[in-house]
Amino acid sequence: MYLAKIKVTYKPSVLDPQGEVIKSALHRLDYETVEQVVQGKYFEVKLTASDLEDAKQLIESMAEALLINQNTETYDYTVEEVEG
Amino acid sequence: MYLAKIKVTYKPSVLDPQGEVIKSALHRLDYETVEQVVQGKYFEVKLTASDLEDAKQLIESMAEALLINQNTETYDYTVEEVEG
Repeated sequence: MYLAKIKVTYKPSVLDPQGEVIKSALHRLDYETVEQVVQGKYFEVKLTASDLEDAKQLIESMAEALLINQNTETYDYTVEEVEG
Repeated sequence: MYLAKIKVTYKPSVLDPQGEVIKSALHRLDYETVEQVVQGKYFEVKLTASDLEDAKQLIESMAEALLINQNTETYDYTVEEVEG
């Protein structure tokens, strides 16, 4: 069994309105030292695969097929073998 | 300057309907070996702080004040010093 942890964020060139909203909310709560906030999506996917390489390929394929919008988002991930 | 990376997911006891929806979508796309999907939020927060300990305390305080719903969500984070 493999566990992938996938972080999805907007590409740097894409405006992140949600991040701006959160930054101003944090400033209103007196967290003045916050300079920048980025909000994205986080996925954990448990899957079986023949080996680590196969798990990686499956994850990259799933990410690009469903989990991210390739026009506006970018992602990075880790995959590790787990029990169960 | 410090950069915090915060992963927010539902507590294990809380149903994750979005994760179930994504799992069935992945199965329909022939990713049969997917056993479980968890979807959460991901934040990156850049902030200034007097030192690493101060940055950690600020992040924990912000997370609990705004970034997570303490009834249904749990989070983990990393903080590192960065340039700029």
